[in-house]
Amino acid sequence: MPYVNIKITEEAVTNEQKNKLIAGVTSLLQETLGKNPKTTMVIIDEINIDNWGLAGLSVRDYREVLAKQPA
Amino acid sequence: MPYVNIKITEEAVTNEQKNKLIAGVTSLLQETLGKNPKTTMVIIDEINIDNWGLAGLSVRDYREVLAKQPA
Amino acid sequence: MPYVNIKITEEAVTNEQKNKLIAGVTSLLQETLGKNPKTTMVIIDEINIDNWGLAGLSVRDYREVLAKQPA
Amino acid sequence: MPYVNIKITEEAVTNEQKNKLIAGVTSLLQETLGKNPKTTMVIIDEINIDNWGLAGLSVRDYREVLAKQPA
Amino acid sequence: MPYVNIKITEEAVTNEQKNKLIAGVTSLLQETLGKNPKTTMVIIDEINIDNWGLAGLSVRDYREVLAKQPA
Amino acid sequence: MPYVNIKITEEAVTNEQKNKLIAGVTSLLQETLGKNPKTTMVIIDEINIDNWGLAGLSVRDYREVLAKQPA
Repeated sequence: MPYVNIKITEEAVTNEQKNKLIAGVTSLLQETLGKNPKTTMVIIDEINIDNWGLAGLSVRDYREVLAKQPA
Repeated sequence: MPYVNIKITEEAVTNEQKNKLIAGVTSLLQETLGKNPKTTMVIIDEINIDNWGLAGLSVRDYREVLAKQPA
Repeated sequence: MPYVNIKITEEAVTNEQKNKLIAGVTSLLQETLGKNPKTTMVIIDEINIDNWGLAGLSVRDYREVLAKQPA
Repeated sequence: MPYVNIKITEEAVTNEQKNKLIAGVTSLLQETLGKNPKTTMVIIDEINIDNWGLAGLSVRDYREVLAKQPA
Repeated sequence: MPYVNIKITEEAVTNEQKNKLIAGVTSLLQETLGKNPKTTMVIIDEINIDNWGLAGLSVRDYREVLAKQPA
Repeated sequence: MPYVNIKITEEAVTNEQKNKLIAGVTSLLQETLGKNPKTTMVIIDEINIDNWGLAGLSVRDYREVLAKQPA
């Protein structure tokens, strides 16, 4: 019965990777809480990096700031 | 005042069908709880079948498994 | 396969009313899009009226403003 | 630590406007609750006007009704 | 940067189990997509079984129907 | 027409603070995108610190780790 929503940045995520996320989180819920995979629903949202913000910046700008910081 | 989010698979849903969902759920809330349609908000998300998982599989793979099962 | 999230204000909604919402939206999706009730998931969130805002006010204050307006 | 999801209609919103929303809501949470901008996450969803309903109508139809009403 | 929302039924889930879900999904995202655990956010919602519907029934009623079915 | 969902940790947030968040985000959307406050909906979810994860830990454990780090 669980419902899981995974939001990730829209960056060429392959179907294989999506399948891994779906299978992985379904198994995690089965192992941890004994949830039935047959009624475990997973939805993956891919979000444009201009539509996602962290530390007051869009991810695009946030990464630019990070890139300029000394290693 | 209700807010309703309907997630369905992205499969050529027509505007007419969307309007039916919006009108239908708005009436349901009015009849069941006396909610005011004017402040009833409905958002429909259409999700790619590779981004939706059930029983540990993407909907694409889930349907392939179903198709192979004896009728 | 649909997923529906219904958010309503937390105001003594009965289980009977919740069942009506669950059954009603499941039938609506079956009639409108031919969706299988067995994999239609509905979640109802009941939100405190101080945690819900409209027109820049909490629902509590919004209703007070409405109540003061001439009929 | 806050998570904010802003849903707006999909109507040519610029990156500059999105940045303003991200920065603005992050500051609001810092000023109001002392939340750390570094762990404040904001996601903006842009919704097609045929996928958004109000008063039982899609936003497209809702606006047509409004436009026909006497000023 | 991922955001994960896990909705489960409200049935005495322990903090240990919640920690396992948080750690598990964070590792899954790191292994599958190389996501940074430091900015991976997970929120677990526990939903009352009268507020969760499947197959047109609340989970409470759904389980009663299942229990009456021949093994 | 915007819909905003703000998730914060459940830590004695006052109604006054909630009102500030509701009013603040409504004004932000009006100033930034010209959105009509009357149809701007805001929902605030308060999440238990054991139900919120960051860096693979619950917020409770995350804060304990932070507290042990040299200033």
